[in-house]
Amino acid sequence: MSEQDGTFERIRDSFAKQGIMRLLGAKVTEVGEGRCQIEVPFRDDISQQQRYFHGAVAGAIGDRAGGYAALTLAPEDREVLTVEYKINFLAPAWGHKLVARGEVLTAGRRLFVCKAEVVAVSDEGEETPCAALQQTVATAPTNK
Amino acid sequence: MSEQDGTFERIRDSFAKQGIMRLLGAKVTEVGEGRCQIEVPFRDDISQQQRYFHGAVAGAIGDRAGGYAALTLAPEDREVLTVEYKINFLAPAWGHKLVARGEVLTAGRRLFVCKAEVVAVSDEGEETPCAALQQTVATAPTNK
Amino acid sequence: MSEQDGTFERIRDSFAKQGIMRLLGAKVTEVGEGRCQIEVPFRDDISQQQRYFHGAVAGAIGDRAGGYAALTLAPEDREVLTVEYKINFLAPAWGHKLVARGEVLTAGRRLFVCKAEVVAVSDEGEETPCAALQQTVATAPTNK
Amino acid sequence: MSEQDGTFERIRDSFAKQGIMRLLGAKVTEVGEGRCQIEVPFRDDISQQQRYFHGAVAGAIGDRAGGYAALTLAPEDREVLTVEYKINFLAPAWGHKLVARGEVLTAGRRLFVCKAEVVAVSDEGEETPCAALQQTVATAPTNK
Repeated sequence: MSEQDGTFERIRDSFAKQGIMRLLGAKVTEVGEGRCQIEVPFRDDISQQQRYFHGAVAGAIGDRAGGYAALTLAPEDREVLTVEYKINFLAPAWGHKLVARGEVLTAGRRLFVCKAEVVAVSDEGEETPCAALQQTVATAPTNK
Repeated sequence: MSEQDGTFERIRDSFAKQGIMRLLGAKVTEVGEGRCQIEVPFRDDISQQQRYFHGAVAGAIGDRAGGYAALTLAPEDREVLTVEYKINFLAPAWGHKLVARGEVLTAGRRLFVCKAEVVAVSDEGEETPCAALQQTVATAPTNK
Repeated sequence: MSEQDGTFERIRDSFAKQGIMRLLGAKVTEVGEGRCQIEVPFRDDISQQQRYFHGAVAGAIGDRAGGYAALTLAPEDREVLTVEYKINFLAPAWGHKLVARGEVLTAGRRLFVCKAEVVAVSDEGEETPCAALQQTVATAPTNK
Repeated sequence: MSEQDGTFERIRDSFAKQGIMRLLGAKVTEVGEGRCQIEVPFRDDISQQQRYFHGAVAGAIGDRAGGYAALTLAPEDREVLTVEYKINFLAPAWGHKLVARGEVLTAGRRLFVCKAEVVAVSDEGEETPCAALQQTVATAPTNK
């Protein structure tokens, strides 16, 4: 458990330095081995024309959920950088929060392949899948 | 020229409704037939860990630049929706502003394929390509 | 069951017209609602430098598995066309056969989002995931 | 020039080991610094349902054109492996040959980002863009 706590802390620290995640009101809500969940509650100022979550929010938290999922499996002295990702938008993202669940598909020495699904959660707690993301992440020595 | 102005207006209107573009401080700086340029000046609160632009900003404005490039070629009674995009991060995005240039590769009846390049611009005006995006956009009847 | 048989037949017909699938020795081995499985046995002439399956084979059958998965859910008078796909190579594809399993993530009126995983199967029947594909498919009126 | 010749030879050698490229009848027709062109003449057995080139052919030669473009810039003791690619199909690939032109966008120490365009060439020599590919390539020590 302590190890997992260490990872959670490490992710929280990294997250805290990412201005844009604060700006979006995003927070890490779950971390496991090769997994990470990020949520962002609805706000008018991150909406799209028709008052649903803007795709950029799904992209941002999907990418981070995948990246942090990779970080949970990376050596302690390395950080992770997104090489690329691809995102498909599946449905309009209506709801009171958006949840991204990242997962590692394969972990190599330098490269990870991850995926993330992004769901919109209604007031009743119902989930609608609204984006699917597939991603390549590289590890790099930590800048300290 | 008036037609182009109409397009510019249409894009500005759409843009104004996108809370997240305001939040990022993004603005449309050029529009042409099948082309659109969007810029966002640097701010601490949209930065990444190491104080460069967060990838999510490149993704957000790259996607919009491609989408609005498509909108310039879409029928007047239709809007555009991103089906999917793929983004490669080419270099750290240092600089005082980030510029995304979107361009239509092929325009179909319902689907457009677009690309966008995102460059970071230094104080001296030098440009560093930092992301390349390839995208599918669909047209849909305007919600009015 | 008869309906499923109809779908299987429809896919087999479409498959038979695709010269390249014959050339690769690929065959459809399973079809279900929103699912399709395609296999190709190893041969020297579809190998890569180091004598494993060439990535192009994984791409080809992954794409077809996703496309036919979509076809199982498409109206009878429509066929499917790949709009785009993205493939990550996860591991070298050693084995005596390559199996692609396609699955529909969301089915819209005109667009489907699908995914496919490609695994290499060893003589002992062990599976190694070697590629992950995410795809957009469009339906179109059948050319007859 | 001799260096370029060396690169051309290196690519031809790698190509010769790729059974599938022979199977498709593909050949490398141009190589430059950070660039590679691959062609494949039309044959019935690599066609798609409606008698145009199958998308798998465009994917296969687009991927190789990008990969070999990267190889021209890689250290001599390293080979290149495709990490992932994304391909958009722009138009039906009618014509008597298919030509893929690969180009390096950025060359890093271990990772390259490349793109390739695939065009169909008519009997009159007219070119129709039919696919656009964006790709990540990694270098690895040569297996000898």
